[in-house]
Amino acid sequence: MNPLPPPMQQALACAREALVLSNPNPRVGCVITDGAGRVLGQGHTQRAGGPHAEIMALSDAAALGHSVHGATAWVTLEPCSHQGRTGPCCDALAAAGIARVVASLADPNPLVAGQGFQRLRAAGVAVEIGAGAAESRELNIGFFSRMVRKTPWVRLKIAASLDGKTALENGASQWITAAPARADGHAWRARADAILTGIGTVLEDDPQLDVRLVPTPRQPHLVLVDSRLETPLEAKLFAPARQLLIYFAVADAARQAALQARGATLVHLPGPGGKVDLAAMLRDLAQREVNELHVEAGHKLNGSLVREGLADEFLVYLAPKLLGQGRDMAAFGPIGELAQAVALEFHGTDMVGGDLRILARVSGRDAF
Amino acid sequence: MNPLPPPMQQALACAREALVLSNPNPRVGCVITDGAGRVLGQGHTQRAGGPHAEIMALSDAAALGHSVHGATAWVTLEPCSHQGRTGPCCDALAAAGIARVVASLADPNPLVAGQGFQRLRAAGVAVEIGAGAAESRELNIGFFSRMVRKTPWVRLKIAASLDGKTALENGASQWITAAPARADGHAWRARADAILTGIGTVLEDDPQLDVRLVPTPRQPHLVLVDSRLETPLEAKLFAPARQLLIYFAVADAARQAALQARGATLVHLPGPGGKVDLAAMLRDLAQREVNELHVEAGHKLNGSLVREGLADEFLVYLAPKLLGQGRDMAAFGPIGELAQAVALEFHGTDMVGGDLRILARVSGRDAF
Repeated sequence: MNPLPPPMQQALACAREALVLSNPNPRVGCVITDGAGRVLGQGHTQRAGGPHAEIMALSDAAALGHSVHGATAWVTLEPCSHQGRTGPCCDALAAAGIARVVASLADPNPLVAGQGFQRLRAAGVAVEIGAGAAESRELNIGFFSRMVRKTPWVRLKIAASLDGKTALENGASQWITAAPARADGHAWRARADAILTGIGTVLEDDPQLDVRLVPTPRQPHLVLVDSRLETPLEAKLFAPARQLLIYFAVADAARQAALQARGATLVHLPGPGGKVDLAAMLRDLAQREVNELHVEAGHKLNGSLVREGLADEFLVYLAPKLLGQGRDMAAFGPIGELAQAVALEFHGTDMVGGDLRILARVSGRDAF
Repeated sequence: MNPLPPPMQQALACAREALVLSNPNPRVGCVITDGAGRVLGQGHTQRAGGPHAEIMALSDAAALGHSVHGATAWVTLEPCSHQGRTGPCCDALAAAGIARVVASLADPNPLVAGQGFQRLRAAGVAVEIGAGAAESRELNIGFFSRMVRKTPWVRLKIAASLDGKTALENGASQWITAAPARADGHAWRARADAILTGIGTVLEDDPQLDVRLVPTPRQPHLVLVDSRLETPLEAKLFAPARQLLIYFAVADAARQAALQARGATLVHLPGPGGKVDLAAMLRDLAQREVNELHVEAGHKLNGSLVREGLADEFLVYLAPKLLGQGRDMAAFGPIGELAQAVALEFHGTDMVGGDLRILARVSGRDAF
């Protein structure tokens, strides 16, 4: 594989700066260079409603006193062509005199989807597509998932002992991993649009499930699967200021009213067996602009997501200890033969303090 | 930490050449240098009964036509002082005119234990001790364990899914990991003095438990825990030519005779509950010169070893898959609180093909 041109590497680095910032917009970076390859300006997508990467880079160049006439813009996603919360970036680039745009890949947003490139070319701007495509798509896997599959990218975070136990038989699970892994887990929460948990975890651990251990410009939404509306009104999860969605299956007007009074948005999505229809929930979450869904749930909800083929990726922290007996990572099966196992691929293993972090992706799930 | 002198690094590399060769003797390397640091000869311990590293290095120098008069010998363990299967190396070094010996650390063998150094000094040879001590001890952790603790170093090899399952509920376990991990597992078998399994695995999988997937100059012994002497006489484990030890608890003269007729050595070590006394078994294995014991057993025997505090290290291969339900790595507990977990330390994580190999050591177990 050819190495990426340095300006595109820099544009990708800019895009990563938007990791916890730009949701639900994609993480995009832009670098503007002159004919000699000198960087004239750079930027990344800001908060939703704020400027996109191209506008930031143009502003940066202007602030530095650089003319961008005849310059090249390296951008990690197709410049937008629609009037959304901000104006179309393709027009801004052309108007600024940019002569050439090198973009990593087309925007899967049906409102853009090649029209940005078309309008650039129509304005006489040369367009090249492809450099950094894999990196940019991976950085925006959730955005691509929402745009293409119409569901979020579902990442299950699991903390377990080396022998795969997430809690003792009596439910004790605080803490299996050490402080560095827990802080790292919060960093992964921060990049998600929403955190999902189940009523079992709420009743057992009464968690806040917000981002506390790392700085963040925003709190992800909290999504709760609570089929029978059992969430206690005094649960800690009501404290952090953020959007709270409760999906339920069994209607109860009084409970619904009480939970709404606590600030929750209630969504009735009954599935078989008095349970929430999880697949429908994911479609609904995508409509609510959730790109990445970070799941921190117990073995039952994890098991349901796996059983129904809704899990995309596992973020597993393995602590250097053995618990012997206790709760499993995901209660599904039993399967009858090994060929029926859920096939994964390891996408990265790193030590985080004394714990081991493993990122494992369900085989083929990112081929959409 | 100071970097190791290059000749000692080279001596350690020589020692590693003896990994699957020298058992039950320690893995030792020797490099002889002249005053300018030029290597005159090098070698490593050969098969038991063959020459030690120092003799090999002296021979190598002689074969190359180099005089070693006034030279320095870099050796990863104290030169032996006793007449064992071979003559004392300390005398050979002094007789050859070696002026200085740099040794990593003292031999824990009570037959040596400093006497090698004493005799070198008495012969006018300068002795320095310490360089490469940690590396040499780690390479010979089993030999040190046998000499100091009077038990082997017990390494449990486990192949599991990411969610910690070693078999389905119906017992199916072939294969959870892929071919590269299985070959790697054979390489770890090869370095062991003996492979241990339990009657459950024999009855369920009928394994050979020899070294087949990698080249080896010798087959480890096979040790079987078979409390009630249930090993079928037609079991495949009788096929490979090697020493076969069966530890049992419940005597049965006819079964004993039949198994002995198949070539097995039977050892009666009854413990509580009609089970084999595993701690006594380890002491017995050390007396039989087993340094490293490689355990490939099921969750029950693994659990007994963990519960009784006899496991030193875990060699875990995690396959990128989820099985949901099935057998655990080690059936012990349940424990009542997380503080009672078996504390480990991760000593290395490496991808082996698509599987992840984790070496985890019970905290503090190597402090002997």
